[in-house]
Amino acid sequence: MKPVCLVIGAGAGIGGHVGKRFAREGYHSVLCRRSDEQGLDRLVKEIEANDGSASGHLLDATQPNTIEDCVAAVEKDVGQIEVAVFNLGAQIGNRILENTSYKAFELGWRLATFGLFRLASSVGPLMVERGNGTILVTSATAAVRGNAGQHSHAAAMGGRRMLCQTLNAELAPKGVHVAHILIDGAVDAPDTLGKMLGAERFQKLREERGLEQDGLLLPEKVAETYLHVAQQHRSAWTHELDLRAFSDLPWWNH
Amino acid sequence: MKPVCLVIGAGAGIGGHVGKRFAREGYHSVLCRRSDEQGLDRLVKEIEANDGSASGHLLDATQPNTIEDCVAAVEKDVGQIEVAVFNLGAQIGNRILENTSYKAFELGWRLATFGLFRLASSVGPLMVERGNGTILVTSATAAVRGNAGQHSHAAAMGGRRMLCQTLNAELAPKGVHVAHILIDGAVDAPDTLGKMLGAERFQKLREERGLEQDGLLLPEKVAETYLHVAQQHRSAWTHELDLRAFSDLPWWNH
Amino acid sequence: MKPVCLVIGAGAGIGGHVGKRFAREGYHSVLCRRSDEQGLDRLVKEIEANDGSASGHLLDATQPNTIEDCVAAVEKDVGQIEVAVFNLGAQIGNRILENTSYKAFELGWRLATFGLFRLASSVGPLMVERGNGTILVTSATAAVRGNAGQHSHAAAMGGRRMLCQTLNAELAPKGVHVAHILIDGAVDAPDTLGKMLGAERFQKLREERGLEQDGLLLPEKVAETYLHVAQQHRSAWTHELDLRAFSDLPWWNH
Amino acid sequence: MKPVCLVIGAGAGIGGHVGKRFAREGYHSVLCRRSDEQGLDRLVKEIEANDGSASGHLLDATQPNTIEDCVAAVEKDVGQIEVAVFNLGAQIGNRILENTSYKAFELGWRLATFGLFRLASSVGPLMVERGNGTILVTSATAAVRGNAGQHSHAAAMGGRRMLCQTLNAELAPKGVHVAHILIDGAVDAPDTLGKMLGAERFQKLREERGLEQDGLLLPEKVAETYLHVAQQHRSAWTHELDLRAFSDLPWWNH
Repeated sequence: MKPVCLVIGAGAGIGGHVGKRFAREGYHSVLCRRSDEQGLDRLVKEIEANDGSASGHLLDATQPNTIEDCVAAVEKDVGQIEVAVFNLGAQIGNRILENTSYKAFELGWRLATFGLFRLASSVGPLMVERGNGTILVTSATAAVRGNAGQHSHAAAMGGRRMLCQTLNAELAPKGVHVAHILIDGAVDAPDTLGKMLGAERFQKLREERGLEQDGLLLPEKVAETYLHVAQQHRSAWTHELDLRAFSDLPWWNH
Repeated sequence: MKPVCLVIGAGAGIGGHVGKRFAREGYHSVLCRRSDEQGLDRLVKEIEANDGSASGHLLDATQPNTIEDCVAAVEKDVGQIEVAVFNLGAQIGNRILENTSYKAFELGWRLATFGLFRLASSVGPLMVERGNGTILVTSATAAVRGNAGQHSHAAAMGGRRMLCQTLNAELAPKGVHVAHILIDGAVDAPDTLGKMLGAERFQKLREERGLEQDGLLLPEKVAETYLHVAQQHRSAWTHELDLRAFSDLPWWNH
Repeated sequence: MKPVCLVIGAGAGIGGHVGKRFAREGYHSVLCRRSDEQGLDRLVKEIEANDGSASGHLLDATQPNTIEDCVAAVEKDVGQIEVAVFNLGAQIGNRILENTSYKAFELGWRLATFGLFRLASSVGPLMVERGNGTILVTSATAAVRGNAGQHSHAAAMGGRRMLCQTLNAELAPKGVHVAHILIDGAVDAPDTLGKMLGAERFQKLREERGLEQDGLLLPEKVAETYLHVAQQHRSAWTHELDLRAFSDLPWWNH
Repeated sequence: MKPVCLVIGAGAGIGGHVGKRFAREGYHSVLCRRSDEQGLDRLVKEIEANDGSASGHLLDATQPNTIEDCVAAVEKDVGQIEVAVFNLGAQIGNRILENTSYKAFELGWRLATFGLFRLASSVGPLMVERGNGTILVTSATAAVRGNAGQHSHAAAMGGRRMLCQTLNAELAPKGVHVAHILIDGAVDAPDTLGKMLGAERFQKLREERGLEQDGLLLPEKVAETYLHVAQQHRSAWTHELDLRAFSDLPWWNH
């Protein structure tokens, strides 16, 4: 039975490519996303066509028990989750205070912070019992600085980052590797950035940043680092690292 | 009519002393806390006995509309809120993952992160309209590092810190000063630290740290810095500062 | 005999105004700068004309024994140094790697990092012996992030910040307050920013940022916070804080 | 002709193992260290015995022109430096202020900060001209927090970290990858930690931390991450990451 890589938030960007990369490495990838069953099927078939193993689940992380049930079902029916990837974003664009509803503020937290807590509460104890496992958390610049209009997103991501530290403090000595991966730039992903910008502006950005197609973060290259972190020997674990395109400014530089 | 200093979370520690200090400076202090009406009355009377002006409100920040209604009532009946102090904590002691219920995790966020968002959403636009105002946010070490067992607290405080940055980014250019005040140590406060430790351990800690009674953060001294920050000229505002007793280790030193 | 406030780097900006502010508070200010004896005399006379007490020293911080001899002479002839302000900058403008000579790189360190170490080595033990004292260190954005072209400045300031932490870790428990004050913006100072930009561009910037004359950091307002930090009770000391004009972007926001 | 991996500071710890790992990957490793020619020869022979390619240089980084001449000689005689690893430490143990001589303080900077600047000044422009290259910088906890007694070390490492950021800001857009690798823990290295502690205490620490021999950072495992960072695609580069043993506390946790 193959070890399982569970991806919460597996679209056409980082999540999907991480699923593909781990499948290529011999994992069974369980790909979870909220909607677009067709896209999900396509992803699974693409993995299988490359002699990989995968399955897909539609999962609404705002609903009770969805993450918990998924973890339980995978452990029961598919195999032990060795790697859990939390890849849910909560970017809703810039909104001034008066346009940020309580509902939007809470939703950010529910997806980006509480969702990770639920995943960790479900899968963490299983990994502790086995004495190993990896939880890879995709994070965003908003986890380390709050820009104007980012009230919901930054509060949620700031909470996520501190939660990664408390999880690491508790789980690392028990053999479970928790990593906070700061994606500090725009990802070349049609169904997140692409949707936010619209098809035309997205294509324009790609062309502007183009530079031989690597001016945006390419998700298949990002996935290589996810794999490396999951494979680090426990005598030399990374808890926090950043990733950005060479041509992009780090968040701390003007 | 006196300018108002509204304190959300005004017990016998920092909140109460900030209320007293601002009253002494000529503000009318509106002191809000969840319970202990008697203690609240005592605080108001102590301020009045020193020729200050104050009033008290019982307010449960976990309930809808409480913060919002309080802000509206104060502005209508008492005066313009020039300084709003958000001083709600959410420390529940160290609990391992399996002992941290979803409810406890959410409550931390609801008090420590969402409560601030509600206050800022209520009072921020009023301050913007007037072109000035100050929002002082008490924060904790857990806002900058997550220790073992602090899942709920650190996630909530990490969110609070990033929220302070987004509020500052939006409000500062409009004349509203937002400050994140990191209380990096134990406060000599009977009804927070005292309750958490119990009377006996609290007294013991005070004696150990004693050193002429200043080995813990003395809330009346902390209040001096709150006042200073509120009085800073807008050409030289502080957004973030830390406070600890001289004899204590900063969070970054072992 | 008045307590002494020693200012290393007392020009027409922050250093000079800190000297004036402390003199007004009852300190004797010893003002040290590298050159412009006339300007120094003017500053001393201005303080004396306001019933304050001050004296001036020309001091080249790149030369051996200058800081050390000054501390010794002041302690012997003027009075006990209660507050030492280290206000030497090392900004040389942006230079690409190939245009940053080894000499320029070393000079940055010699002024901005080693200069502080020399001051702390000279005055720290005296303060420790007396069980109190304050060392206020002016710092710059380059202490927390390195921008393009800032090789010399950022390396020097990054070193300065870490040195402030090691000094604090050692001296604070012995009663000596060390504070790292991050000046995160342009200061309205004719002889540093003014010289760097040239008279015309400086005046233009002042007008652009003008907004009732507070769009740049006004050094006399900055000085109020230096005084406050020096007056904090030792149960509630600040080690690190930032200062910027309300209308300016913090370094972490784009 | 093989691409060259130049290691400044190649002892029996991280530097030597990085040299071995890159040699195994097809690089010619140029190993530089201050002394112990015998040890250096042994290292080169070990690499050659494994079908790798390497050469050794004795190099005193405190002396003028040593790093510069080495870079020039390697480029002329051995091959293009694709990866430059700066692995010089400057830890001298904890010393209080009065026991930290000016000489010791300067030496820390000269090795840990200026040494990197010299390497970057020598090799950076060559890499920029070729449009690619990698500079991997070993860093230490003291780069992000200053503990008591670490005056020289922390000031030097804080400068090093900021220098890495300025180098990255300038070189990354030109295709040169700069990474700051924070080694946040004790490395199982006989000739640095081993010498500092003495043979007996070193062995005792190894046994205490043992836990199947991975309670200290194992340098051969650390080397895997150096290799990964050097191999990252330029659309997804890491600038900063931390490494520690699973059983160790991160620097921010008490």
